[in-house]
Amino acid sequence: MKVHIVGAGLVGTSVGMVLASRGDQVTFSDTSKRSASLAQGLVGGEETGSDDPVDLLIAAVPADKSPEVIIDAFERNLALNFMDVASVKTRCVAEIESFNPILAARYCGTHPMAGREVSGPESAQADLFQGRPWILTPTVLTSPETIALVSGVVDAVGAIKIQMSPIEHDKAMALVSHAPQVLASLMAGELTQNSPKSAQLAGQGLRDVTRIAASDSQLWLGILSANATALHPILSSLNRRLSALILSLEDGIDIGAIRGFLEQGRTGHDLIPGKHGRNRQYVVLPVLIDDAPGQLKRLFNDAGDADINIEDVSMEHSPGQPTGVVQISVAPEAAERLMGYLQERGWRIYGPRNPANLP
Amino acid sequence: MKVHIVGAGLVGTSVGMVLASRGDQVTFSDTSKRSASLAQGLVGGEETGSDDPVDLLIAAVPADKSPEVIIDAFERNLALNFMDVASVKTRCVAEIESFNPILAARYCGTHPMAGREVSGPESAQADLFQGRPWILTPTVLTSPETIALVSGVVDAVGAIKIQMSPIEHDKAMALVSHAPQVLASLMAGELTQNSPKSAQLAGQGLRDVTRIAASDSQLWLGILSANATALHPILSSLNRRLSALILSLEDGIDIGAIRGFLEQGRTGHDLIPGKHGRNRQYVVLPVLIDDAPGQLKRLFNDAGDADINIEDVSMEHSPGQPTGVVQISVAPEAAERLMGYLQERGWRIYGPRNPANLP
Repeated sequence: MKVHIVGAGLVGTSVGMVLASRGDQVTFSDTSKRSASLAQGLVGGEETGSDDPVDLLIAAVPADKSPEVIIDAFERNLALNFMDVASVKTRCVAEIESFNPILAARYCGTHPMAGREVSGPESAQADLFQGRPWILTPTVLTSPETIALVSGVVDAVGAIKIQMSPIEHDKAMALVSHAPQVLASLMAGELTQNSPKSAQLAGQGLRDVTRIAASDSQLWLGILSANATALHPILSSLNRRLSALILSLEDGIDIGAIRGFLEQGRTGHDLIPGKHGRNRQYVVLPVLIDDAPGQLKRLFNDAGDADINIEDVSMEHSPGQPTGVVQISVAPEAAERLMGYLQERGWRIYGPRNPANLP
Repeated sequence: MKVHIVGAGLVGTSVGMVLASRGDQVTFSDTSKRSASLAQGLVGGEETGSDDPVDLLIAAVPADKSPEVIIDAFERNLALNFMDVASVKTRCVAEIESFNPILAARYCGTHPMAGREVSGPESAQADLFQGRPWILTPTVLTSPETIALVSGVVDAVGAIKIQMSPIEHDKAMALVSHAPQVLASLMAGELTQNSPKSAQLAGQGLRDVTRIAASDSQLWLGILSANATALHPILSSLNRRLSALILSLEDGIDIGAIRGFLEQGRTGHDLIPGKHGRNRQYVVLPVLIDDAPGQLKRLFNDAGDADINIEDVSMEHSPGQPTGVVQISVAPEAAERLMGYLQERGWRIYGPRNPANLP
């Protein structure tokens, strides 16, 4: 089929690569001519100059630009079907569907949950979406043919298809993506209200909680504004629960309430799937390494010789410390063997621990 | 000198190891006889049976037990000087100092910021505190001799000595350790109030923000209760700032306020030191790996051959994904060379990015 992609960024170009490789005729346009030609070069093929509408137009542009790109393309009769990839859906879907009933039938909103990578066509990869969730948000107005066509694209890139209503999508994103961003920014921002000396005492907990506070403000400004309706009740709930905890810390400390708060956090944490959708059940081996080139090489060399699959790996640091700790996560049945194997080879391991018991 | 350590856990035993190795005569006691003998065995030496007071008694017991252990030892004339290692200081110091002016002069409160490792003497390591901050909280009542003695212990274990008042300490910990724990539990707990389906869409942001929500509830119940006074104003400030953000998301969205909130988070994030006390200035290379034994070995083997120091490493997963992404952080000047080196060897790298720009 013929596909036109508006927006030759990371997402648009990566999708185009896959579609071209399965034989689709893919063309690009972009406000940057350089990006459009680079994407076209990466994907192969070229503008045909034909005036016939393409089978599918994909708007791979910033969230607030999706509706106008799609409506413009519809008015110019550029395509028979339309999809977008914006990370907030309710407003975008409503704007497009209310424009014209024919367009409403031929449009399906989607949101690929990949990225965190750099932008631009040069970063595109045919396997970018492999195994990642890709949410489809068709409505009662969307035609089965359009849904099938869009589903085919998501299947082609190897993503895991998830169907939700636009409102469900925006609520879920508010909870699992936008609220965590707000709390990370909230915590990091609090550091500016205190002596900078305090931040020097940061441990791994603060680092983890605030990592995404370093995110691009402009990008998140757009997301939080666009999804204000779904985000508002979740932030309000967080604020109410925080208020309750604060009360329980006042005179005559309410031990039961604090314990309940902490236990609820543990229960919620268990809902987050680990690798491969399983809940975390691996064992962590903390290995001390020196801060020198080749240490990680030697460690993973030794671990690799043991022929044990490493499930997760992370490194932690302390201020001014010449050594670091590499945390290696493995299946429980493999932990003791790997530990013995590494210790025999001179590695200092503190002993296994279950990440669920981390203070 | 003669040192008696009450509490043969990870901290007590690790300190004992170092002191014994510099020639001190170290003895242990513990409510668990097994722990005490194991620690004594690890450290060497034995009970002398002498009734003379030791030079220093270290109370390495849970925070709420520190005062009674020290007061009891003082009353029984077991030691000439006293220190503890509890993670909340104001209440503990006040209780000990108000008990007796002589004890007040001979006691110095401290807090070693190491751990996250398993507990028990079997996990002890002489290098546990190497390069880690160790806070001392002497007061005007503490004698210079006692401060010197306790400083000597902290120097001996290779920790970085930081002096603060008990109140400063508790305020700093409330900010950099206790408030992040509360926000992590708050966010994770919110997942229990929504469809479990949503948590399945968790990305790395939610995982990072909520990681420490899996911490031991009993341990944190003690910490939050003991430090309620210092924690309360910080949680109240977070509560106020979150309320303000919620208001700015209501009708007539206040773009300036949301931008200010996000920018404040970025500014605060920059206050957190990276590895070796520097602020983060490295470049992240995301490398795709297959989920098979030996992949990390091969990757770090190849990276090690390039003779480039890897500053940080982490792995990310998606539900159901057969492959993973290993994020390798290196100095900016080394990034391009390492990327080229790895790509030549067949590794798929998405392209470098600066962690400060992560969405």
